[in-house]
Amino acid sequence: MHKPASTHFPLIEPIRNRWSSVIFDEKPIEAEKIGSLFEAARWAASSFNDQPWSYIVATKAQPDVYNKLLSCLMEANQVWAKKADLLAVAVANLTSTRTGKTNRHAQHDVGQANANLVLQATALGLASHQMGGFSPDRARELFEIPAGYEPLTMLAIGYPGETKSAAADLQSRDSSTRSRRPLTDWVFTGTWGTSSSLVE
Amino acid sequence: MHKPASTHFPLIEPIRNRWSSVIFDEKPIEAEKIGSLFEAARWAASSFNDQPWSYIVATKAQPDVYNKLLSCLMEANQVWAKKADLLAVAVANLTSTRTGKTNRHAQHDVGQANANLVLQATALGLASHQMGGFSPDRARELFEIPAGYEPLTMLAIGYPGETKSAAADLQSRDSSTRSRRPLTDWVFTGTWGTSSSLVE
Repeated sequence: MHKPASTHFPLIEPIRNRWSSVIFDEKPIEAEKIGSLFEAARWAASSFNDQPWSYIVATKAQPDVYNKLLSCLMEANQVWAKKADLLAVAVANLTSTRTGKTNRHAQHDVGQANANLVLQATALGLASHQMGGFSPDRARELFEIPAGYEPLTMLAIGYPGETKSAAADLQSRDSSTRSRRPLTDWVFTGTWGTSSSLVE
Repeated sequence: MHKPASTHFPLIEPIRNRWSSVIFDEKPIEAEKIGSLFEAARWAASSFNDQPWSYIVATKAQPDVYNKLLSCLMEANQVWAKKADLLAVAVANLTSTRTGKTNRHAQHDVGQANANLVLQATALGLASHQMGGFSPDRARELFEIPAGYEPLTMLAIGYPGETKSAAADLQSRDSSTRSRRPLTDWVFTGTWGTSSSLVE
């Protein structure tokens, strides 16, 4: 399904076309494309270039790890995510490697890495879906994630599935309109809450 | 200056070409391009589509707000950021609008919005630089940012400046090689610290 964002100002194609699908095809993702996904995350910006991101990853060709990853998801997410060829947990290093103190941009910078990853996925013709709905405790236990590292989100990536072959509720979710708050609600000038003329 | 990332796996152009410049030209950014920057942020993914981002923004054509924004930056950043046409503070809403409780993905999702914004900037021929080096307290005071909202990063966006006309230390910073940890250091399989064969 193609659901380009309806915008007032023009966007680059990957941003315009990225959305969170719930209908995946089980077809394997080519090795080079998987490499490009994490290469994209790698080149995200981060505070003092600290690169606080790590991922635990598996494809369906690695069923032991894949099934462990799947088991961390909330059941409502497992229903559709189990079709995606690649699952991952994104983990934030909460400690600055430079100062040894808390990195207050750790989660923010993992967000940048994930954003790059899903835009690269979109450009490669892959569907993506990031999820907060999983058990960080279970991920920590299964994958021996050390203290000081926070399992932050999970990602499902794969080829888009055929709408007609999916369950009715997934078809309905997949075809829902993408929506966002208007720019004037959150782009402000000198005082909080006053819309900037730059986005009118 | 053009500094494409040196990668093993191919990347889309905006990810490949984005980097954090310290040499800007004062030339104004066209209104439609400014619109596209925030449109790009707008279409980022967020947990439960909560869209926890806001921005306080000004260009040089709005000197009162621009100078207030500039005054929030650490002096070492002011030196070069003062040339950029657009300055902004990115602010995270720490409370979920859905549950009224803490949104543990707020900073992560603002990171996704910022990543989209700087990739869109890159595609439009603009230079960008995100900064943690500013005073959140000063931003909160000057712009009346309410409790429950966290000033997280600042951004400088503008046309790239001419290398030769910049101070020697900025020329040196601008020409430094972009570097990142190898994928095998942070893309793991079943156990923490074990590199995934998917990125070898």
